[in-house]
Amino acid sequence: MKQARHTDSIVFEPRNPNYVRRVREAFEGQPMLASLGVELFKIDPGYCELHLPYRPDISQNHGYFHGGAIATLADVSGGFAGWSLLPEGMWIVTVEYKTNIVAPGRGEKLIGRGRVVRSGRSLTTTEIEVLAINNGREQLCATALQTLMSVEAKP
Amino acid sequence: MKQARHTDSIVFEPRNPNYVRRVREAFEGQPMLASLGVELFKIDPGYCELHLPYRPDISQNHGYFHGGAIATLADVSGGFAGWSLLPEGMWIVTVEYKTNIVAPGRGEKLIGRGRVVRSGRSLTTTEIEVLAINNGREQLCATALQTLMSVEAKP
Amino acid sequence: MKQARHTDSIVFEPRNPNYVRRVREAFEGQPMLASLGVELFKIDPGYCELHLPYRPDISQNHGYFHGGAIATLADVSGGFAGWSLLPEGMWIVTVEYKTNIVAPGRGEKLIGRGRVVRSGRSLTTTEIEVLAINNGREQLCATALQTLMSVEAKP
Amino acid sequence: MKQARHTDSIVFEPRNPNYVRRVREAFEGQPMLASLGVELFKIDPGYCELHLPYRPDISQNHGYFHGGAIATLADVSGGFAGWSLLPEGMWIVTVEYKTNIVAPGRGEKLIGRGRVVRSGRSLTTTEIEVLAINNGREQLCATALQTLMSVEAKP
Repeated sequence: MKQARHTDSIVFEPRNPNYVRRVREAFEGQPMLASLGVELFKIDPGYCELHLPYRPDISQNHGYFHGGAIATLADVSGGFAGWSLLPEGMWIVTVEYKTNIVAPGRGEKLIGRGRVVRSGRSLTTTEIEVLAINNGREQLCATALQTLMSVEAKP
Repeated sequence: MKQARHTDSIVFEPRNPNYVRRVREAFEGQPMLASLGVELFKIDPGYCELHLPYRPDISQNHGYFHGGAIATLADVSGGFAGWSLLPEGMWIVTVEYKTNIVAPGRGEKLIGRGRVVRSGRSLTTTEIEVLAINNGREQLCATALQTLMSVEAKP
Repeated sequence: MKQARHTDSIVFEPRNPNYVRRVREAFEGQPMLASLGVELFKIDPGYCELHLPYRPDISQNHGYFHGGAIATLADVSGGFAGWSLLPEGMWIVTVEYKTNIVAPGRGEKLIGRGRVVRSGRSLTTTEIEVLAINNGREQLCATALQTLMSVEAKP
Repeated sequence: MKQARHTDSIVFEPRNPNYVRRVREAFEGQPMLASLGVELFKIDPGYCELHLPYRPDISQNHGYFHGGAIATLADVSGGFAGWSLLPEGMWIVTVEYKTNIVAPGRGEKLIGRGRVVRSGRSLTTTEIEVLAINNGREQLCATALQTLMSVEAKP
């Protein structure tokens, strides 16, 4: 039997009852996500799942998803996971992240799943999995580790 | 209910039936681990758990575990997780890793848990949790994401 | 007087006399770069500079360059720097990278500058700066550290 | 001629005239650094150079410097570079860092050189080179990219 992850035992409470609407607004406010075709699939406290259907104009030399599309999906999946825990009047910015591309982004869709592993007063840490769905079969494409910072929203 | 991690569904098969002895030899061949007091607690295929009891001479300004001890534990927990899947005659070196220190290393013991998330022909990707045990209570201290490379063992 | 960087003293020799054409072909083979509007500005052995003019459709909530555009520029600036040192018949893939977004991507243009700091047989390490040009003034927007792997080109 | 790095053009002013003494006190307050044998070689505003002479008890399987010693040196070289710019009454903690080990730590000494590349109100970004001195010849051993946070010092 596998040793469970400590981080999977952590339960997060939203500090804003309207967190789903809040994330949706932040998502819709980023024109680049519409340009790429990213879809908001699921928001839970400390969790966000995004989908990105394949299109040739976001591909690389072999016709697979471009690394830039994979990294963008990782970044925003983690970012909106962090956003789901924000109090009213705060905003999230990405401080930094690191991503390992463990397999080509081959298939009809990418799925990004961001999970908060620590939610501090100012900094939030998230982990992200990006999966490639190829003929319906799910494969790990990338994994990422991210730092977010809460800042006061601009009026 | 929480969405399970894709990586938790992956099962690894050892390529060397003597993988436990192999990891133990590699562990014992690193004098720095004895200097710090690191203990090999558990080896499974693609998994390694190491313990590090507190000592004042590996502490920082507030008397907690030094960040160098935390990072070393993260690095070798992931490294030996990768080593457990090596075929005979191969060796592991760390290419790079990134670690987020999410809380001070406060307490009587650190626990490092390394998990392989992708085992390729040449490169292996691992994820690591470092927990601080404080009065018996477990807290997340650090999380890390690491790349290892298999090389032929020197004679 | 500032201490010079060790890595700035390293000089790289191209292993393929046609390295400029090689990088240009690789660049032109990635549809996502044309979609974003990335321009290949300069290639030297172990160095690549890319430009990305501002467009609203690659922006985020405040109208600045989206983090995904910044990270993509960082990734490919480092990638093509590595590509410039490849022997004939080889190909570059990104293993992983980490990027710190140190300031918003505000301005009329982003510049990505990738530099190889170590070129091994199989792995290449690069460092990247992304600068934001705002009313003609250059500001550091992101810095990144990247691992690339050489693989045999598919026929 | 090589393109100069943008970050090399940035000049930092110390916010505390006693920054050298301040860093020295922080350095001496970390017992782990004395245990490893780390020496404080040079402090300038936004810069720190540390030395680590070779000892067998901080080595790995081949008798070279252990990766944990390399990473610890990288972390604290960047950390004290950040510390040099702190105002009175503040303290530095490492949020995260990523290090690429580009060559074995072979030789009689390691040198860590940390440089601040961005000094913000709360967060500081640093870059670090770790060099191995082997028979007097300097070689790049590791490069790192780090995030630090300023916190109020405990009384």
